[in-house]
Formats: sequence, structure tokens, C-alpha cells
Amino acid sequence: MEPILLHDDRLFPADKPTRDIAKALYDSVKALPIISPHGHTDPRWFAYDENFTNATELFITPDHYVFRMLYSQGVSLESLGITRVDGKPTEQDPRKAWQIFADHYYLFAATPSRLWLDTVFHDVFGMQEMLCSENAMAYYDHITTELATANFKPRALMDRFNIELIATTEGALDPLTHHQQLQGSGWEKRVITTFRPDDVVDASRDDFAENIEKLGALTGENTTSWSGYLNALRKRREVFRAHGATATDHGHPTALTADLSANECETLFEKVLTRQASNADKELFRAQMLTEMAGMSVEDGMVMQIHPGSHRSHNVPLHKQFGGDKGHDIPVAVNFVDALKPLLNKYGNEPGLSIILFTLDETTYSRELAPLAGHYPCLKLGPAWWFHDSPEGMLRFRHQTTETAGFFNTAGFNDDTRAFLSIPARHDVARRIDCRFLAQLVAEHRLSENEAFSVARQLTYTLAKKAYKLEA
Amino acid sequence: MEPILLHDDRLFPADKPTRDIAKALYDSVKALPIISPHGHTDPRWFAYDENFTNATELFITPDHYVFRMLYSQGVSLESLGITRVDGKPTEQDPRKAWQIFADHYYLFAATPSRLWLDTVFHDVFGMQEMLCSENAMAYYDHITTELATANFKPRALMDRFNIELIATTEGALDPLTHHQQLQGSGWEKRVITTFRPDDVVDASRDDFAENIEKLGALTGENTTSWSGYLNALRKRREVFRAHGATATDHGHPTALTADLSANECETLFEKVLTRQASNADKELFRAQMLTEMAGMSVEDGMVMQIHPGSHRSHNVPLHKQFGGDKGHDIPVAVNFVDALKPLLNKYGNEPGLSIILFTLDETTYSRELAPLAGHYPCLKLGPAWWFHDSPEGMLRFRHQTTETAGFFNTAGFNDDTRAFLSIPARHDVARRIDCRFLAQLVAEHRLSENEAFSVARQLTYTLAKKAYKLEA
Amino acid sequence: MEPILLHDDRLFPADKPTRDIAKALYDSVKALPIISPHGHTDPRWFAYDENFTNATELFITPDHYVFRMLYSQGVSLESLGITRVDGKPTEQDPRKAWQIFADHYYLFAATPSRLWLDTVFHDVFGMQEMLCSENAMAYYDHITTELATANFKPRALMDRFNIELIATTEGALDPLTHHQQLQGSGWEKRVITTFRPDDVVDASRDDFAENIEKLGALTGENTTSWSGYLNALRKRREVFRAHGATATDHGHPTALTADLSANECETLFEKVLTRQASNADKELFRAQMLTEMAGMSVEDGMVMQIHPGSHRSHNVPLHKQFGGDKGHDIPVAVNFVDALKPLLNKYGNEPGLSIILFTLDETTYSRELAPLAGHYPCLKLGPAWWFHDSPEGMLRFRHQTTETAGFFNTAGFNDDTRAFLSIPARHDVARRIDCRFLAQLVAEHRLSENEAFSVARQLTYTLAKKAYKLEA
Repeated sequence: MEPILLHDDRLFPADKPTRDIAKALYDSVKALPIISPHGHTDPRWFAYDENFTNATELFITPDHYVFRMLYSQGVSLESLGITRVDGKPTEQDPRKAWQIFADHYYLFAATPSRLWLDTVFHDVFGMQEMLCSENAMAYYDHITTELATANFKPRALMDRFNIELIATTEGALDPLTHHQQLQGSGWEKRVITTFRPDDVVDASRDDFAENIEKLGALTGENTTSWSGYLNALRKRREVFRAHGATATDHGHPTALTADLSANECETLFEKVLTRQASNADKELFRAQMLTEMAGMSVEDGMVMQIHPGSHRSHNVPLHKQFGGDKGHDIPVAVNFVDALKPLLNKYGNEPGLSIILFTLDETTYSRELAPLAGHYPCLKLGPAWWFHDSPEGMLRFRHQTTETAGFFNTAGFNDDTRAFLSIPARHDVARRIDCRFLAQLVAEHRLSENEAFSVARQLTYTLAKKAYKLEA
Repeated sequence: MEPILLHDDRLFPADKPTRDIAKALYDSVKALPIISPHGHTDPRWFAYDENFTNATELFITPDHYVFRMLYSQGVSLESLGITRVDGKPTEQDPRKAWQIFADHYYLFAATPSRLWLDTVFHDVFGMQEMLCSENAMAYYDHITTELATANFKPRALMDRFNIELIATTEGALDPLTHHQQLQGSGWEKRVITTFRPDDVVDASRDDFAENIEKLGALTGENTTSWSGYLNALRKRREVFRAHGATATDHGHPTALTADLSANECETLFEKVLTRQASNADKELFRAQMLTEMAGMSVEDGMVMQIHPGSHRSHNVPLHKQFGGDKGHDIPVAVNFVDALKPLLNKYGNEPGLSIILFTLDETTYSRELAPLAGHYPCLKLGPAWWFHDSPEGMLRFRHQTTETAGFFNTAGFNDDTRAFLSIPARHDVARRIDCRFLAQLVAEHRLSENEAFSVARQLTYTLAKKAYKLEA
Repeated sequence: MEPILLHDDRLFPADKPTRDIAKALYDSVKALPIISPHGHTDPRWFAYDENFTNATELFITPDHYVFRMLYSQGVSLESLGITRVDGKPTEQDPRKAWQIFADHYYLFAATPSRLWLDTVFHDVFGMQEMLCSENAMAYYDHITTELATANFKPRALMDRFNIELIATTEGALDPLTHHQQLQGSGWEKRVITTFRPDDVVDASRDDFAENIEKLGALTGENTTSWSGYLNALRKRREVFRAHGATATDHGHPTALTADLSANECETLFEKVLTRQASNADKELFRAQMLTEMAGMSVEDGMVMQIHPGSHRSHNVPLHKQFGGDKGHDIPVAVNFVDALKPLLNKYGNEPGLSIILFTLDETTYSRELAPLAGHYPCLKLGPAWWFHDSPEGMLRFRHQTTETAGFFNTAGFNDDTRAFLSIPARHDVARRIDCRFLAQLVAEHRLSENEAFSVARQLTYTLAKKAYKLEA
């Protein structure tokens, strides 16, 4: 019977009656269009619709989920062809990198990466056997050949994957060239941007002062003054909205917010601009800026996403060699209750305000996030994020938030990925797991079948559109 | 087949052999009398035995579980008829509030509120269909009509619900009028009070100094001195015991305890009385008072309940409009190990002392609470509390505490509710979930069937009576 | 049907198809030799191969898992015959202690102690009935009689238990007399030591200065100087390696590490030696010493085990009477991400370095430990530890670490016990639970059967040998 690369009933519970309910629920949602309201694909792909190059550059070098696992078992990043920021040599032959990947593919047993990769290999490329040392080159050649065909251009894949809408993420200073290119192409409604201002609100960055200057140049505002700075941000938000953005995104180290007076803000802004600021000042400035962003969202209706709690680039020596996003961002404990209070006490009861919270600290699901979202009208819970974007992670999310926050204070699924080809696989995992969770409730007579079918559709499609204001 | 409001096998696992064991265990305990040793029902009900008014005033306006969920989805508290503390107008027609509730009933899918409400609707009022927009008024009329009958008077319901004993909770300054009314009625053994001294030990309250004065007046003690204050507390405990109380209850923000010298206590008490105290002083005073209360429990045998870790009234603007207990108390992380050490090092080995710990921070179950209760003879674990008084919450409690603390260091079930009609529903959920947990142990050959039946009875009935010293 | 002391299918899931897979996996690993790379058995047993005395001295007085539960329910430690450090009298009749234990055996329902004890009673002593008040003396006599026979000598049991290798743990100052005795006996490869330097790196101990002096005497180094102290540690590590040690073990209160300059180290060492040090200094010294130990491991290849987060001897009055390791060590929350950063930034990318992390704070599994181990090549995750060395604890470990760290960044099972007879029972629980976890993955088509059989062998045998460098 074995090996079978991908079983139709994967991720469903073994118990037959429950599995049957899960399958029925899944059958009702599996073909719904994909809404991808938060992710990191490259808008260039959709703007110019050029073919991808080869299997290694598609599946290994951009995917820190993949190479962190290889690195953890002693595979050097150089041998995988990851570019060094110091210009030192790395493997240039993508076939050699692919062979190493295949040799270590067993490491991914029972990880979500394995599930996504196998799904892509099977569903997109028609592979039937598990990747291993022996078939590595055949795999590589088959995939690389396919990638060169018209069917594998980004826009063709968008259609094939049934992606109704995808949001990319750009920094506040991004010229949005690629989204501009999309305007008038008919694709500008399907590929939208997201406003991510971390580079101009995080004063702990080395390039902060420089960024503020650029922000002034880009907007014609005097960004050396607090009010000019705020106006510049308003203008950038407007430009992003003109390129489809309905949301902002904030990747702060903590969830801290503040509610300072205008005077205090001016003084603090001056301080952080002139590099006289302590770490506490910088933290306070980030905190105040979350509240300012919420205020602007009240004005312009943009949905706010807060993604706190990642200790970025923990392995400093490796960071010096390879730069950021290299698989060594590590979650830390987060306190939402005290941290969000200033913002929520200022804007938390505003009609129309929508804030989507994410966490890497699962202890906050039942203790903090579900109680907060189960009360504040502005709060919704984003899906299980990053390390927890996985079957077990999603189950923990539902088991720990539903009883207090219900389903309707959650925001559907995000794939949050730069791995474009894995998007259908990721959404498929979420659909299967949500249906599995619902099936258990039905089988245990905690939810009627009628309601389960209705909720399944909400979790798959409706809630994401609503939470991100993508309707109409 | 659908819709069915309430299935006989609800909450049992889907796996047939395990479900059969769960049902057998449940059958053996489902009819046992209800012991409700911790809750917030109004003693006036039992003292005067008057009919309840209408469905809205019974199920919506007093239940913050219900209206917080509606509020989280944009329903205003005014429209539900929740009274504003500032006297501004709110909806006066209970039928309109009920209709809004019914329109949003789908929000409660898979929450414990839904389970309790459906159980009450079905078991107490005989409803067969799920509440929805269409049947809202029929529901309202039926319930309100029933409520006016003799069968629905509080004492009749006590009998119908098979409640052997219920404890209410009163502040230290409460005159206990209603409990006094019960004396000699034959009901004084079934409806007892609980001593909750937060208002006279928490110096951070605006009314603290005033309360201390009242405490003096009430007891004839000089409460401006430390020893007079302590004597006054002793006297109030005595009065409460005369009204049936076997327990005290302490809702501190943290679990901090202290063990100061008598001199330090005197100085601190003086400080907090004269409003010269810092926040740290007030926290230290609360901490010392937990230890003092434990000392008095050693003297008088009262069981001590500690309920820490709720950040009360997080939404300050809403609190100004509607006051406390309005669905925006949010849990925070709690440290029990360091916090309880002073108290436990002073009294933790005292024979006869009984302290029941509750938490809203589930991370402490396996890390702190089970190891503490699995060692200290005075400690017992209260059931999963508040947000965690739910099927998933109870399962997590058992899964995470049993291996270290066993069953016999737990204290049975508390309904902790002001929603009188939901009491049988809440106990029923606990009985089903405990039996389900035991059934899994039996099915996996981790516990013999004989022991499971014995433990089921303990968890349902015996342990609560023992932990709260209700025997005899 | 009941009672049955020990069911063949215990700990497997009830669902028949999943159970069948679990059984097949378990059948493939149940007879593999036991690797016990971390534990606390007494090397004297193996050195002199003398018979154990009686049931009480084997099962009760040395096992804090057992007597803490009895103590939590009001049984005094004196009545169990636990020796008081103050010399006051305790029960001298082991039969009386055994009777008390049997009378309270029901307290252990659903705990791992019960599972281990029942397994030993059944598998090692052939008992068929559950221990209870009535059969207590028969149990005692049977066990005590058996213990006096040749079959129950330590070395015979090592063979019977199929223990390929066992590591004991000795302090840095231990003369290793018993391991020396083993040299040349053919047993020195099966019974090895582990280097545990807490007594000479923890300056908060009362005997620290004295220990440093002894360390100097033992090694001929001048341990009043920083460099002499380091050399002395190097020499002790060498001696331990000569007695088979492949690993060191570090039981610090926190996971804090530091990376001070040589000058700072010298100054700090001087300070802690002369007892002028603050608590912060002592914590910093321990932190620096973890980094120093990692550096020495880079030099000599010894595997480093870090066991942080136990608040030792919480019950101070009891500690004064009975000393340490008496069942009142309580876990506390641990931060690994910030704490380990200095060490990891210095040595985390060193080829050949191997550090095995343990935790009592399960919240760190998915948040910190799996992400760290899923990146750093030197890190492996030790098995669920102490309170979590249990069916539920092991399941939580696998469910919460596997998706991010995979299987191959874990280190197999440790029994971590001083209860020699329970070693096969403990390994058996781990094998059953790992197979159960894998069976669920197979039944849900998340892992192929082929891979599951291969992984089962890794988790049972191969990974432990590899992680502890026991191969060849």
C-alpha cells in the first residue's frame, strides 16, 4: 500500500463517524476561492508574469522554514546557496543544493513544511513518490522543466489556485512600482498591497533617521516635526489605499501601546530623531505609534494587524553573515492585557475600528486574547501564526479560543507566506483542520450539523473578507 | 434528524467503546444532589421566595458572559437594557432586548453559555427548537409565563434542581439580612453565606477608609488600630459562621502573600489607612492580609478560597458608564510559587488548614498548582474557573493536573454563578466532562472501571463536601 | 473481568485502527535494549552487587514522588520512616510504613507513579492484584523475600531489564570510588558517571567556598585564582571522562548564561569567593559558568545537559526537618530565549557541540524550545522531565515540539530516576506513548507507516545513543 505521497483523508480524525462528518464539511468548502489577505509574495511576479527559474530557488533558498531545519542538523547555509551579506562564496549549483535538501528530507517528518511541500509536489507537479536521495535529480528536473512552461507563470497559477485575492506587504517607503504596474491590467483588484510602517516607526533601527528623511522627501512633509511626520504617514496610507490596501501591519517586538499627550509626543519624537533616545524611549515611541496608527485607522478605515513577540535574528553571528529572516527569529512571552490597554481605552469602543491580533505565545490564547476579543468590538483574532500555522497549532488555537471568543471574533485564515506555490496547500491544511475541529463538535453533540456547515464556510471564506473589509 | 436542541450524549467522546464507558459513569452520578459551595446567587431569592420577572431580566441583563459576546460584535449594552451608572437612558422594553439576543444567538455556537442556555431552555422550560430571530417572541412569552407560576419560585426550583446546599457570597460589611431571614425556616442549612473581605482588606479601593470605619461601627472595635482591625475581622467571621459560612473568599489581583512582623503590620496599616500609601504598600497590605486570613482560618477552621489574576474592568470608558462586572475583566499571568511562599512557609503544614486555589492562568496547572497541591497538605485545587468553566477548560484542567496532584487534591465542582437557573446545567457539564475524562482513562487501561466509578462519585459529590467542610 | 493489574494495551488509544498501529509499532521496539543516559541510581549497587533490603526501603523512603503525595493528604513523613536531618525519631518498622502506603494507594490513581509501581509489582514481582490495605503485608513479604534472592541482585536485574547502559550522576568533588571499583570488571562500559558541577559553580550554596577549596585539594590547582579554578574543572572533567562520562549536567535555578570578559570573570570570581557577593553576582556567576562549561564542552566533546527552573525546597520548615529532595521542589516559569543568548551567540554554531535542554515549564515547548532546537545545530530537546515524565506530559511534549523541531532534534528518553526497579517501567511508558503518538500521525495520514517504524526505533534507541555520544 505504501508509499503514498498524499492521502485524500489526511488530517482528518481516525474515528470513522467523526471522519465522515469532517469529510462532508470539507467537501463543502474545499473548492471555495482563496482569500489571502496577509502574506509576503513578491508583487513583481504578478506585475510582470515571468516564469520562476528552478526548484531550488523556488523551494529552498527563500524558505526559512526549510533551511532552518537543515541548519539545525548541521547543514551549512552556504551549501544550500543562501546568499551571504558579506559577499563570501556560497554554493552556486542549484542541483547540488537540491540534492542536500533531498538527502535530509526525512528531517521534516510530521512538520507542516513536509505537508506543504508534499502537497505542492503532488498537486502542482504530479509527483507520486516521496522525495529522497535517489529521486532527487529526477524531481529537480521535472519541476524545473515544468516551471519554464506557460502554465506555471504567476498569473496562470493564480487562476489555477483559484486565488480570488492576494495581499502583499510593503514598507511605508516602498514606491509600490509593481502595484502601479498592475493598475489598469484588471489584476489590481486581485493583487493588493498592505501598509507596513515598521521602518518609519521603530526608532531602534539603524536606518530610522534616514527613513524619516526619506519619508519627508516622498510626501513633501516636514518630517522633523511631529505633526509633519503624522501627516506624512497619513499621506502614505492614502497612497497605499490607492493601491488596494485595506490593512496595515505592525511587527513590533512587544504589544506595548501608549497614550501620551501631544506635548509628550513632540518631545519624544524629537528625542528619537536626534538619537539621544534610550531603549525605553524607543520602546515608548513604538508604543505611542501603535496608538497613533489606531487613530488613523479610525479616520481612514484601514484594518490594523498587530504581530508582536518575535525576537528577531537571535543568532547574531549568523545574522552578520546572512542577514535577517534566516530562520532564527524566536518567539518570546507576550503580555497583551496591560500592553494594549492604553490603545484600547482610547479607541477600543470606536465603531468601525478593526484590529486583528496575532501571537506566537500560545499561552495568551485562552488567558488574554479570547477574553479581549470576546469583549472589545474592535478586536478580532488572527489565525495561528508562523510556528503555529500547522495542524497541531491550528487545533490548539480553536480549542483554546472558541469557548470564550466564539468563531465570529476570529478572522479566517492567513497563509503569511512568500512561498507562492504553497498557498493552496496552506489553505487546504486550514480548511481540513477547521472541518476536523467542527466535526468533533458535531460528533460530540456540541454543535448541530447545520451550524457546522455554516461556520465552515465562514471560517474558510466569509470571515476573512469581512475582517479585512474586502467585501463589495 | 436535525435540529435537536439537546442530545442525551452531548460532550461524550465519539469513539463508541469510550462513549459507552462515559455514559455508564455518568448514569451513576447524574442524579446525585448538587453541592454548590461557591457562587453568587442572591440570598434574597431564597429568603422571600418571590417569582422571577421575565426572560430578559433572568438571562440577559445579569449575565456578563452573555452580553460581553453581544458587545464584542457591536451590540450596545444600552440596547440590551443594561443599567448605566450615570443614569443615562437604556432600553426599557425587555422584549426588544430579547429579540436582539435571539438575533445574535448564533454567536454563541460552541461556547459554554450556549450549552447552559440550551440546557435551561430544554430541561427547565421544555423548548425543542434552537432560539432564533423567528421564534424569539414565542420563547420570551413562554418563559415569562412559566416564571410567574408557583413551580418557578426559587425554593421550588431548589427542590426541582436537587440542590442540597448552596453558598452565596457576601462582603465583610454585609448585614446578612437575607440569611437572617432564613434562620428558623428550615432553609438555613441549605442556603449559607461565604465571607468575602475584599472590601476591607484592599486598600486600593476608593472606599477603603470608609469601609474600615464601617467595620469598626459594625463590630464595636477600634479599627484605627491594627489589633482592633484584626479583632473586627474575627468578629465578622464569627457572624458569618453563625449564618452557615464554612469558607472565606479572596479575589485579589495577584496571589501575593507576605509575612511581616507585628510592628511592620502596624506601620503598614497606619499608612494604608491615612491614604499615604503607594501602590506597592497597598499590594503588600493585601499580601499580608491573605496571610492573616490564613492564620484566622487556622484558628476558626474556615476554608480559604483564593481567586487571583483577574484584571478587573479593563475597558475604563465602559466602566465609567456601566460599572463593574460588565464582561471586561481580563485574566493575567499569575505566579503562585513565589507569591504563596510566605503564607505557606508560615501555615502550610498546619493540620486542619484548607486553602482552595483557583486560576485563570492555565499555564500554572501543571507547572505550579499541581506540584504545590501535590505536596502541601493544606492546598486543594478548585475547579476550572470562569472562562475555563467549559468543556475544553475542564478537560485541560484534568489532563494537566491529575498526573501530579491526583484526584484527591481537587475540590469538586463550583458553579460560581449568579445565573440560578443555569446551576443544574453547569453541574451537568462538569459531571459529563469528568466522566468523559475518566472513561478515556478506563478505555486506555490507565484506570480500572471500579476505581473510575468510585472517583466519579468523589468528583461529583464527596470531594466538594469534604473540601468545604460541609460534612455532618 | 476486573481487577486486572496491568493491561497489555495500556496507554494505547481506544480507537481500534489507531490502537492496532500503535501496537504494531510498539511490538517493533519493546524489546530493544534500554539506554539510560541520565539518572540518579547509586553506583554502589552495581559496584558491589548486594541485595536490596526490603520493600519500604526500595519503594517508599527514597521516592519523593511517592511520599509527597502521601504528605499532601496528611500523612507525616515521620510515619513513613523518612529520616529527619535533626535526628528526631521516625518510624523504624518498615512494615508499618508499608501498611500506610498501601492504605493510601488509591491516591495515586491515574498518576505515573501508580503506573510505574503497578508495572514493577506485576512484571518484576509477579503480583496480580492491586495493592490495598488488605493485601499490604502479603505484598510486603513477597517482595522482601524475593529481594533477598540472587535474581534480584543489581547486576542480575541489569541483565533481566536489558539495560545496555546506565549513567549515574556525581558531583564534581565525588571521588568516584564506586565507578573505580567497576573498572576492569567488564561493567565499566555499562555503568558510567556524569559530571555535575553545581556544587562548585553555584556560589549561593553555603558550602561553596569550602567546595572550591576541596576542588583545589583534589586537583592540585590553585582554585583561588580564576584560571586555576577553570583548570581544576578541566581536570575533574577529564577524571569523569576516564570513568565513562560523556556528559555534564547542570541544575541551575534559571537558564541564564553570560559572556563576560576574562577580566570581569576574574573580578566576579574573587567576589563570590570572598562572600562579598550579592544575589545578583551569584546569579551572574552561575550564568557565566554555564558558558564556561559550554566552552569546555567544545574542547573535550562532553555533552551538556541543562535542567533549569526548579524552585528547590519550597517548604522551608519541612526542609529544616528533612533536608532536600523531599517532594517540595516546585517548577517556575523559565525564559530560555534571552537567557541562553550569550552562550548561544558565543558557541551555538560550533560543530560538535551538543547541548540538551530540559524544562519544567511546558509553555516553552512550542514558544521557545522547539524554535531554538529547530535552528541551532548544538541544541537538542531532552524528553519531558520530572512532573512531565508521564503519559500526558510526554504527549504534550510531542504534540508541541514536533511540528517545529521535528523528531531528530530530540534526544530520546531519560528515566532520570533513583528508583532502579522502575527503570523498565518508565522506558516502557515512553515507548508506548511515542508509539501512540506516531500511530495517530499514521492513522491521520500525516506520516507514512514506513517512516513511523523508523522513527519509533530512533526515539527508543538510536537518538539517545547519538545525542549522548554513546556510539561505538
